[in-house]
Amino acid sequence: MTFGELFGRGAVDTSDSAWLQAMLDTEAALARAAERAGLAPAGSGAAVTAAARPEFIDNAGLRTTAAAAGNPVPGLVRALAARLPADARDVVHPGATSQDIIDTAAMLLASRATHTILADLTTAAGHAARLANEHAGTVMAGRTLLQQAVPVTFGLVAAGWLTAIDEARTDLARIRGSRLAVQYGGAAGTLAALGDAGPRVADLLAEELGLAVPVLPWHTDRLRIIQLGAALAGACAAAGKVARDITLLAQSEVAEVHEGSGGGSSAMPHKQNPVASVLILGCAKRAPGLLATLAAAAEQELQRAAGAWHAEWETLSDLLRLTGGAAAWAADLLSGLRVDQARMRANLDAARGLPMAENLATKLAPALGRLAAHDLVARASARAVSDGTTLADAVLAEAPQALDRQQIDAALRPETYLGAADEFVRRALAAHEALEAG
Amino acid sequence: MTFGELFGRGAVDTSDSAWLQAMLDTEAALARAAERAGLAPAGSGAAVTAAARPEFIDNAGLRTTAAAAGNPVPGLVRALAARLPADARDVVHPGATSQDIIDTAAMLLASRATHTILADLTTAAGHAARLANEHAGTVMAGRTLLQQAVPVTFGLVAAGWLTAIDEARTDLARIRGSRLAVQYGGAAGTLAALGDAGPRVADLLAEELGLAVPVLPWHTDRLRIIQLGAALAGACAAAGKVARDITLLAQSEVAEVHEGSGGGSSAMPHKQNPVASVLILGCAKRAPGLLATLAAAAEQELQRAAGAWHAEWETLSDLLRLTGGAAAWAADLLSGLRVDQARMRANLDAARGLPMAENLATKLAPALGRLAAHDLVARASARAVSDGTTLADAVLAEAPQALDRQQIDAALRPETYLGAADEFVRRALAAHEALEAG
Amino acid sequence: MTFGELFGRGAVDTSDSAWLQAMLDTEAALARAAERAGLAPAGSGAAVTAAARPEFIDNAGLRTTAAAAGNPVPGLVRALAARLPADARDVVHPGATSQDIIDTAAMLLASRATHTILADLTTAAGHAARLANEHAGTVMAGRTLLQQAVPVTFGLVAAGWLTAIDEARTDLARIRGSRLAVQYGGAAGTLAALGDAGPRVADLLAEELGLAVPVLPWHTDRLRIIQLGAALAGACAAAGKVARDITLLAQSEVAEVHEGSGGGSSAMPHKQNPVASVLILGCAKRAPGLLATLAAAAEQELQRAAGAWHAEWETLSDLLRLTGGAAAWAADLLSGLRVDQARMRANLDAARGLPMAENLATKLAPALGRLAAHDLVARASARAVSDGTTLADAVLAEAPQALDRQQIDAALRPETYLGAADEFVRRALAAHEALEAG
Amino acid sequence: MTFGELFGRGAVDTSDSAWLQAMLDTEAALARAAERAGLAPAGSGAAVTAAARPEFIDNAGLRTTAAAAGNPVPGLVRALAARLPADARDVVHPGATSQDIIDTAAMLLASRATHTILADLTTAAGHAARLANEHAGTVMAGRTLLQQAVPVTFGLVAAGWLTAIDEARTDLARIRGSRLAVQYGGAAGTLAALGDAGPRVADLLAEELGLAVPVLPWHTDRLRIIQLGAALAGACAAAGKVARDITLLAQSEVAEVHEGSGGGSSAMPHKQNPVASVLILGCAKRAPGLLATLAAAAEQELQRAAGAWHAEWETLSDLLRLTGGAAAWAADLLSGLRVDQARMRANLDAARGLPMAENLATKLAPALGRLAAHDLVARASARAVSDGTTLADAVLAEAPQALDRQQIDAALRPETYLGAADEFVRRALAAHEALEAG
Repeated sequence: MTFGELFGRGAVDTSDSAWLQAMLDTEAALARAAERAGLAPAGSGAAVTAAARPEFIDNAGLRTTAAAAGNPVPGLVRALAARLPADARDVVHPGATSQDIIDTAAMLLASRATHTILADLTTAAGHAARLANEHAGTVMAGRTLLQQAVPVTFGLVAAGWLTAIDEARTDLARIRGSRLAVQYGGAAGTLAALGDAGPRVADLLAEELGLAVPVLPWHTDRLRIIQLGAALAGACAAAGKVARDITLLAQSEVAEVHEGSGGGSSAMPHKQNPVASVLILGCAKRAPGLLATLAAAAEQELQRAAGAWHAEWETLSDLLRLTGGAAAWAADLLSGLRVDQARMRANLDAARGLPMAENLATKLAPALGRLAAHDLVARASARAVSDGTTLADAVLAEAPQALDRQQIDAALRPETYLGAADEFVRRALAAHEALEAG
Repeated sequence: MTFGELFGRGAVDTSDSAWLQAMLDTEAALARAAERAGLAPAGSGAAVTAAARPEFIDNAGLRTTAAAAGNPVPGLVRALAARLPADARDVVHPGATSQDIIDTAAMLLASRATHTILADLTTAAGHAARLANEHAGTVMAGRTLLQQAVPVTFGLVAAGWLTAIDEARTDLARIRGSRLAVQYGGAAGTLAALGDAGPRVADLLAEELGLAVPVLPWHTDRLRIIQLGAALAGACAAAGKVARDITLLAQSEVAEVHEGSGGGSSAMPHKQNPVASVLILGCAKRAPGLLATLAAAAEQELQRAAGAWHAEWETLSDLLRLTGGAAAWAADLLSGLRVDQARMRANLDAARGLPMAENLATKLAPALGRLAAHDLVARASARAVSDGTTLADAVLAEAPQALDRQQIDAALRPETYLGAADEFVRRALAAHEALEAG
Repeated sequence: MTFGELFGRGAVDTSDSAWLQAMLDTEAALARAAERAGLAPAGSGAAVTAAARPEFIDNAGLRTTAAAAGNPVPGLVRALAARLPADARDVVHPGATSQDIIDTAAMLLASRATHTILADLTTAAGHAARLANEHAGTVMAGRTLLQQAVPVTFGLVAAGWLTAIDEARTDLARIRGSRLAVQYGGAAGTLAALGDAGPRVADLLAEELGLAVPVLPWHTDRLRIIQLGAALAGACAAAGKVARDITLLAQSEVAEVHEGSGGGSSAMPHKQNPVASVLILGCAKRAPGLLATLAAAAEQELQRAAGAWHAEWETLSDLLRLTGGAAAWAADLLSGLRVDQARMRANLDAARGLPMAENLATKLAPALGRLAAHDLVARASARAVSDGTTLADAVLAEAPQALDRQQIDAALRPETYLGAADEFVRRALAAHEALEAG
Repeated sequence: MTFGELFGRGAVDTSDSAWLQAMLDTEAALARAAERAGLAPAGSGAAVTAAARPEFIDNAGLRTTAAAAGNPVPGLVRALAARLPADARDVVHPGATSQDIIDTAAMLLASRATHTILADLTTAAGHAARLANEHAGTVMAGRTLLQQAVPVTFGLVAAGWLTAIDEARTDLARIRGSRLAVQYGGAAGTLAALGDAGPRVADLLAEELGLAVPVLPWHTDRLRIIQLGAALAGACAAAGKVARDITLLAQSEVAEVHEGSGGGSSAMPHKQNPVASVLILGCAKRAPGLLATLAAAAEQELQRAAGAWHAEWETLSDLLRLTGGAAAWAADLLSGLRVDQARMRANLDAARGLPMAENLATKLAPALGRLAAHDLVARASARAVSDGTTLADAVLAEAPQALDRQQIDAALRPETYLGAADEFVRRALAAHEALEAG
């Protein structure tokens, strides 16, 4: 696709072919399950499985019948049956309705996509962990509301990214392991065509496909779709946070980090566009709207929804694809990120001590009292801002006798005012190791 | 696509090919505009136009370069230039940046798509007008909160659909005529590479493409995207309202209308699924989330956004395609809708006079006083509900002397209690004719 | 509020007072934590706790300072300190930044609100379980795409509601138990003002408030907000599904269920508006948009977001309130729901056997062959639809010798075609009991 | 409210009182309209108008009845009637249903709110125009994808803001003038209780309230709500764009603009938080989700929606309030914005000529040929980046004879490479003046 490689980077496949494959895999597994349950003759599962190959399906024909029926399954079942001997066609699609096939195929597609997404997020997390560890002592300006505030470390920033990615992985893995379930209920959720054998076939179908067994058919209980969507949106958010920070830190005027393979501009050779970050954001910014569509679509009527169900199909597809894109780009981005420690220090130093004002006031408090110390520093800071001087000079001018220059300089060293930054990095790394250890 | 014919019905084309064509059309028009402005040698516009054909473009190559650059335009420009003599390549992409090409192509795509959408909505409106006219006297139950309320006419229902579709058409035509504008600003919105010739080229580019000229480049002013998105969402809402009503009126237990070509179910031959309505809803329910993405993406940084712009591309594409699907299905749906007047009457009669309670109280008021009349009818209605009798019998039982049966029966005739229904139908038809007359 | 009792039913409190209380509770707990960590003199925690009462706060003053500072905390801290002796004011707000207080207060508010929501959902689930159990044998029409399909039981419908509500409870309880965490990071997430004592104070703060301890400060990692939002949207979806079904089943023409205390209409005494269902939908339909806002707001810059964080406050508040409203109305609705078994049966019977066509074909298959049986039933069904006759008569007319009337009647008894409906009800009840048992 | 002054700045009033007032105004206007139409005795309009005062309404009572009826109108009508003589109570609420009152009141509220919003946007636009004019010659770096690109002027940036605000105003004024219409249809849209007098009363009601007359009652045609919502979201987007740019330009490391009354931080006196910008973004980021809710709510069933209508009430209220907040903050922000021209120039100069690379290549082309010139500049730029030298030095080192230093310096002067920046500023100002002139 024109924009395919941009937003569909990585190995997540939600193409028409992938959907077709997932629907055929579902029909094949259902035929095998019916055979195992004794509802179909020996060999019928294998026969359907052999027939259930995308290259046997006439796509143009499928499109036409899909429009007539309102979904592609009836045409697919007919195409599949046509590949079998005339007397064996009954073994296709036993007890099932179209929704069973589409919903189960969607879960299969989601299972495959989230496998890939988790792998890319694991790579991204590994690099974030490496950065957190390497830069636990790399001092830089913390910025709140986009204004320099107090010092932090780049290791702490990376540890924050790491923890968010790991939280997103945990959530997505939980959904993948427990909430991706087969849907198999027949015409209205009773599996009536199978007599009392329905639940047994459902269990075997789940086993064949590696999906969970639900308490009961979930045809119009769409919580698992919302939950899957939210976990994907969470993964997008974690990647998007990294990308937003990197676009900001990579600004020409900040220049503290650079993408490893920034997109060059032929016309403007000085530009190193943060392409990976930009495309992560291009993916991530679409997740909320898609999630809203999925959540709104959960209002489904009685035994099959008139439209809300249909609204899920491409929406979930897109959300899987875009999360895959964000995760793949995030892995690339973090693997190649270049960190300019000197520039980090220089940007902090350019603030002339002001980010250390809070610490200086603390050091002045024993001598002056807390309130007076605060007021003094506030006056000095204002003077430093207005006069363009350093905070040290301004304090000495305001109160020459409070502390000597050496003491002031010591109080203004950012390294001394990092609080628990290092401990937080260690905690994030320990949590990451625990997650990796499983 | 697997779901393509379902949600992409109609002639709206937002495929990769359509995007590629629109981008090539933009480059060709730009070359012609530059030539007309005297910035390029005679014949260069024609040369670029001749080269700007999709079949000359290597899609695989385009995908690779797109991922490196963050958008497909640099690769496209190179591919286009490679089709020209070496000494003539400078005439490609004069003064432009990638965003100019993508944004202008998006407007071109939107112009083509909305042309189709408007045509389908016009067809739909024509059928709604016919239904409104034909059924101006067809009495049916009005239903509020899904409960029978007072009588309406099916003509009034259709007139409501008509007015909403016509309002949506008006809004979409307004956007199409005045807000789809070329974007042409160069690297940062100044068209610096063209010296002072930029605005002249922009005017000619707009003329070549049949798009509007903006006050200034709109690279990070995305109001027209929101406005286009809202007009499309409005069209989806108008179609969705029709579809929602028809799914309700077509319910087995209501059965007042039927889709002309309802999708049959092979297993359940009695079912006539309202396929067109369902698929309209499947399209329309996705519009709000896509619109939200477009609106959120309007927060664009400085001279080009890092991600928000990119989030628009596929989102706008999807919204155009889905609106096209909803409009095409709506035209089908309304052209073939079958109306069961007898059933409408029967459903109303089955309410045993209760929807006429309000009118009966009015008729009783002169004799009893308004309050006493209301209370009498309230008691009688409660009795009719609890005993399963008719309102007429219940009133006669409660107050045998107030009105005689003939008078009561007259007061309970739904035809007498339609208020301005007919006038509203006439107004809607007159407004429709005025719109058609242009 | 004008609409307050409608959408804010139940005991969830997200009013200004509740926010103020939660912020004061956070400041008080922080003072106690600091004292316990040895950072503040004995008694200071109690002193702040005593001062931290809403009635001591000047709301008008708070509003003014909030607008100047961009959030209400600085004014709140000053108001709180003003209640303490001059020499004891330092013990207020130790090491904290405004975001620490607002985020932790939001978690506290969410903890309190979800407690209430879970209680109401538990009530609702209890009634759904009762209905599932009572009506395990109540046959009714299953409806797909709003068309009668095959029989189901009302017990199965209620079991579906039950499972969805229980899933929503499980998810919300999980979030409540593990993801509502204190935020305590100081100016930029390092807790620098506390030296190395920060993490210890954070632990004690969490203990004081009954909230979780995060791996590190989560000021710009908003996954837990998305996850909380998604769990709330899930609860709304579960309630909304119940409400949507009930509005449909309560339609005048269906009339299979009725709200216990349906809102009457003074003008139209026959109307029993499904007020609870309507208001649940009025709440639930707003959840997706609010969730989208929360998900989009997760893109937060560096150490404190410029706007995205602020966008969360009222949004999360609204989502808590509306979920509370939906849950409270759902408890009311399900506790009083009246089920009309006779009407359920009558609606099914009115379909003249057609919903049993699938079963009849199965019974004919041994004699005729599957394909011929299916074709026969399809022809007969079409005849029944067109002639308005019963499926039994139509089959006898088409193929008088295939089965006798007694056999046909037996095949058309809905009770015989319920498949696993009962087993699914039992499973849902068992899962519910397991959840109740904890 | 706790957050009230933050997001509800300005004069937009959507409080409970404002809603109550609007509903009472609607009832009063309806009584006057009925009198003017000859449906009610002389003086009855004045009597209802005199009674329709908020202070006469028992709010607690209203809340209770609202929950029973599902909306506040029945209670309001009773409270209003109770203020009239017993024999005059019939003149209240003639022919109307609850939805008529709530929808018309919403339009009235919207009319009042958009009046205020337009006034604040006009103020904001005036200041943007002033800035555009004053800074038409103020050169600064243009930044694309947050990287310095080529020079622009601050006047052009401000002109872009101006045009967006003016476009938003135009759209909002159009909606306000033509799409805010009375809703008056009675129980099901026929105005049956008025016989054939309904349309006449509707016309008079519209006249009384200064609202438009719709083609027919729009109770379940919600396009005007979507259109209003989109115009509000557009206004939020225009304000949000300004705020996003200012947060970026006000960053510590960029420092090209400062808010006039930046919020100080008591702990960190050097910080000048861009409070107005942050709160604009806090408002604007919520508009897309609210708009999505409104758009989704347009799927309304038959003659009155079960839930979707109810979901609009607070959502529209919030969107009006937040747009009011964004507009009021934007007026403040732009009125006080401080522009640091020297810093703009310094930031551009710090790029060592690289933003002028494109221009330099153009100047070298006549001597070297276009391709060779481009390659030379590309090499020189890469060298300048890697060595930290200027582009001028790098070009001289690469090709000492191509141009002399004076020529190179001339080519690197940003003032010479502004293209149509000034013309675009003039166009924006002219369009603004035309809008002001009406």
